[in-house]
Amino acid sequence: MPLLVVGTVALDTVETPTATRTEQMGGSAVYFSYAASNFTEVRLAGVVGEDWPGQYTEQLRQRRIDVSGLQIVPGAKTFRWHGRYTPDLSDRETVDVQLNVYGDHRPQLSDESRRRPFVFLATGSPHQQLEILDEMTGPRLVVADTTDLWIRDERDALLALLRRVSGLMLNDQEARMLTGCANAVQAGLHILELGPMFVVIKRGEHGALFFSKHETYVLPAFPTPDVVDPTGAGDTFAGGMMGYLAEQGNFEPRTLKEAMAYGILVASFTVEDHGLDRVGTIDRSEIELRMDRYRKMLSF
Amino acid sequence: MPLLVVGTVALDTVETPTATRTEQMGGSAVYFSYAASNFTEVRLAGVVGEDWPGQYTEQLRQRRIDVSGLQIVPGAKTFRWHGRYTPDLSDRETVDVQLNVYGDHRPQLSDESRRRPFVFLATGSPHQQLEILDEMTGPRLVVADTTDLWIRDERDALLALLRRVSGLMLNDQEARMLTGCANAVQAGLHILELGPMFVVIKRGEHGALFFSKHETYVLPAFPTPDVVDPTGAGDTFAGGMMGYLAEQGNFEPRTLKEAMAYGILVASFTVEDHGLDRVGTIDRSEIELRMDRYRKMLSF
Repeated sequence: MPLLVVGTVALDTVETPTATRTEQMGGSAVYFSYAASNFTEVRLAGVVGEDWPGQYTEQLRQRRIDVSGLQIVPGAKTFRWHGRYTPDLSDRETVDVQLNVYGDHRPQLSDESRRRPFVFLATGSPHQQLEILDEMTGPRLVVADTTDLWIRDERDALLALLRRVSGLMLNDQEARMLTGCANAVQAGLHILELGPMFVVIKRGEHGALFFSKHETYVLPAFPTPDVVDPTGAGDTFAGGMMGYLAEQGNFEPRTLKEAMAYGILVASFTVEDHGLDRVGTIDRSEIELRMDRYRKMLSF
Repeated sequence: MPLLVVGTVALDTVETPTATRTEQMGGSAVYFSYAASNFTEVRLAGVVGEDWPGQYTEQLRQRRIDVSGLQIVPGAKTFRWHGRYTPDLSDRETVDVQLNVYGDHRPQLSDESRRRPFVFLATGSPHQQLEILDEMTGPRLVVADTTDLWIRDERDALLALLRRVSGLMLNDQEARMLTGCANAVQAGLHILELGPMFVVIKRGEHGALFFSKHETYVLPAFPTPDVVDPTGAGDTFAGGMMGYLAEQGNFEPRTLKEAMAYGILVASFTVEDHGLDRVGTIDRSEIELRMDRYRKMLSF
């Protein structure tokens, strides 16, 4: 089924121990779309400025991503993010953020976009996530991401959002911050009570936890020795998971677990090279090969 | 097959956010034996002082642990460890350590102990671990644990030990320290080249990584919401793993993976209450029930 992602489209400058990449294509909606396009038709909704390189739009098209929701705002500049990783890649600092076009604009959805049955609201202001949700026409599955900034500054709007989405994705530290629970399992169970049908706690190199009314489980990350750049891992995890759910057209417990495994595997490719370099080369057959290894790894 | 563990027997004082326990039974060999006794006959080799409470020896016997290798050294005091956990239980500081009897004595092995086919050398001076290994008569499987202290202070002896043991267990941070590799998967593969047939990297609440010449895999920790006291988790992981291997009497790849899963599950019980309180109440049937849930969790 058709999938829509609403999120940032950015020019990223990323410093890792092995290289510095300047103004490469990035943003949550871009990484998400790269991952999801392996599974289903995905439409990207986001805004950029006049300085957005046309070749990046072309690259998105070549990945079979529907860019009809990508708007160029006249007179505006594209969102920029500059991050620097620690030598062991376990943490990063934000060197600079320039909101630019995202300071004043949010993606405008066409009628066709509003009818998409599967929707991912990448991290952003919960107020804005709620506005977008209001515009949607009877979506079947809405999943949102959030970050520490919104948990701290827009908690009430976030709580309102949680009562209206099917799923929430966030990382370990954010789950603890939202709930006050030191234990990640307790935090996940607590968030369930705030409204969503399921909660996914992302743990980076340690995989992800899943919570629903009926089950709690954890799946580990795929153990790759080649971690080069973690940028986009969380967004491609979400894209792989949502892409598979949209492809299957349901969110039964069994499908959700398979989807989380696909998310984990797509993210494991992402980190193996800089930016979009690795995730931009994979196809479904390469994902399935790794899935075979992953299933074998987890069976005994 | 009969199993031998050589390690510390201690009086532990442990401060967690919910309680402070004073001079409770502890030490690597004790936690290991509690876990292993669910699977096989385990003999504990360790030294204590005259102040060792007889009731603790009785408790070990009641868990079907062979205490014939537990020696009381006249005029000596028992090893003491005092630790304090952070409020979220993610880290701990050592408030005090009194080596006492371990300053001058190491366990003396009887002829029968020396013939045990499965041996676990709990963390200790690699020089001493090598001495014990020299005393063993053709063991089938020797696995050693180590810690940051020995990696830093006795690296050469540790490297000599690695060339002579079948398996090494250590945690994430220790693996990085030993190899200089920031990536845990790279670290594990690097340690394999130093000699052991297999390497297990323990990651606490994130499970464990396994490395052998033929395969690399990760199994996640069992997601328990009831984490009360992490003391002994690593030692009971080792005890569950070695106990199962000794029970099965082999260390085929399939058995090793099952054994690691058992280690993970026994450790998940350990952390659910203070000290030995929870791991001291489980039996094989309760472990198997959790194993059913764990296998189900990992299949999709």
